[in-house]
Amino acid sequence: MPQESFLESFLDRIAVVLVRARNPQNIGAVARAMHDFGLSDLRIVNEYAMPLEGARSAVDASSVLESAAAHATVAEAVADCTLVVGTTAVGERKLEHPLFTLADAAPKLLAELARPAEPEAPRIALLFGSEKTGLSNEGLSHCNWLLTIPMHQHGDSRHLSMNLGQAVAVCLYELVRDRPLARSSAQPLPAAPEELASGMASERERLAALLSEVLDASEYRRHHPANSGLDDLRKLVLRLHLTSADTTVWMGILRQILWKLRS
Amino acid sequence: MPQESFLESFLDRIAVVLVRARNPQNIGAVARAMHDFGLSDLRIVNEYAMPLEGARSAVDASSVLESAAAHATVAEAVADCTLVVGTTAVGERKLEHPLFTLADAAPKLLAELARPAEPEAPRIALLFGSEKTGLSNEGLSHCNWLLTIPMHQHGDSRHLSMNLGQAVAVCLYELVRDRPLARSSAQPLPAAPEELASGMASERERLAALLSEVLDASEYRRHHPANSGLDDLRKLVLRLHLTSADTTVWMGILRQILWKLRS
Repeated sequence: MPQESFLESFLDRIAVVLVRARNPQNIGAVARAMHDFGLSDLRIVNEYAMPLEGARSAVDASSVLESAAAHATVAEAVADCTLVVGTTAVGERKLEHPLFTLADAAPKLLAELARPAEPEAPRIALLFGSEKTGLSNEGLSHCNWLLTIPMHQHGDSRHLSMNLGQAVAVCLYELVRDRPLARSSAQPLPAAPEELASGMASERERLAALLSEVLDASEYRRHHPANSGLDDLRKLVLRLHLTSADTTVWMGILRQILWKLRS
Repeated sequence: MPQESFLESFLDRIAVVLVRARNPQNIGAVARAMHDFGLSDLRIVNEYAMPLEGARSAVDASSVLESAAAHATVAEAVADCTLVVGTTAVGERKLEHPLFTLADAAPKLLAELARPAEPEAPRIALLFGSEKTGLSNEGLSHCNWLLTIPMHQHGDSRHLSMNLGQAVAVCLYELVRDRPLARSSAQPLPAAPEELASGMASERERLAALLSEVLDASEYRRHHPANSGLDDLRKLVLRLHLTSADTTVWMGILRQILWKLRS
């Protein structure tokens, strides 16, 4: 559990990104929750310009709303972020992303913020979709992973959804819940990232060999001889931490490229 | 960490008591938060009868609102409760009660609910005052102790107050935050991610866009339309966990390939 000084100095590295939130009252409620918990970076993604006037009446949140940024696409809104985390109510949708409860997600978010600022200063985007439909597949495709707030199952889980302002308030609360009040227990920062497991070495070797052929055929190696030896390629492939499934995808892509380059 | 069966069977022993909440929209928001987290016992204290019609439109919360009880006094509203806990924003008021952060208060609340049902079945009242003034001294006088949600100090702490619906949502979330994820949808959770994503989202986006061009030029997309949409590529690139340095290398390789494919 991080100490206050850590929290306060890192909260401005968290952007709340609302995707297709079209109700100004909801946006005002989100701004108020951000103000209450000490965040200020609000980003709003809509295909068309949305008047924020209706939201500007939100109590105490005028500074958050006035500095809110409008973006046309999720890609633009999260461009400067090193970690993009989506929120979901886990309805009927089949998820392809790793999913964590909010309580499990918070230490990961704080660990990202505690990362050294080299090579990139860590910055997190927390994505919230519309109340009715949540994040679209396009929105989800920008996310490193997802978090969910554990809710009560009322039978028909397809209708699971929280009020947007309440969902944001709960998420931000979880991030600061150990902010000291009268307590003095300081806990060490979250543990360092674990090593990634990779696929089999033989798969990597085949991929590196194929990549080597592509670099020859494309004349990349002729232009960049210094870093395209087989050892370099092997290390480059190793650092991809590919699963076997993704290795297969990349083999297919490279084979097609090679075929086309030679035809 | 209480288990699900414990939580679900005891949540109906928690009453949310709103004292002088006169805004029907706020009451509707509270009902929705209760519904979302699986509570149903809402009690409203006002000196005069308050029409709840304005609140009844609250999404999904109609059952909570329909069974809401109106009381003329706090004493009447909490009469059957064994533990009465007030919420406060800890403004300028001099507190005479023991005060706990919400995170420290939750285990105490759950311990009370887990008490044997003799001589009295445990039942908790969570008191929330009006947004403007909080609980009055009269309201506080009914409380065994107080809890507070840690908020950001914006200088003038006298104006500290949360939106009522958000405050209730945050309090109820804390009580159920260790509730296990519902697996009713029977989908296995994807493997845990390692916190390696380091490059900026904008770099990943450029890489995915360039890869997309290569897949067109190499006719890979024509042969494999199913898994080469931009969303697929974005996720494929995301799973590479590239550093900024390696992203640069891969951009160079793909640019050369593209140049060669087109030449």
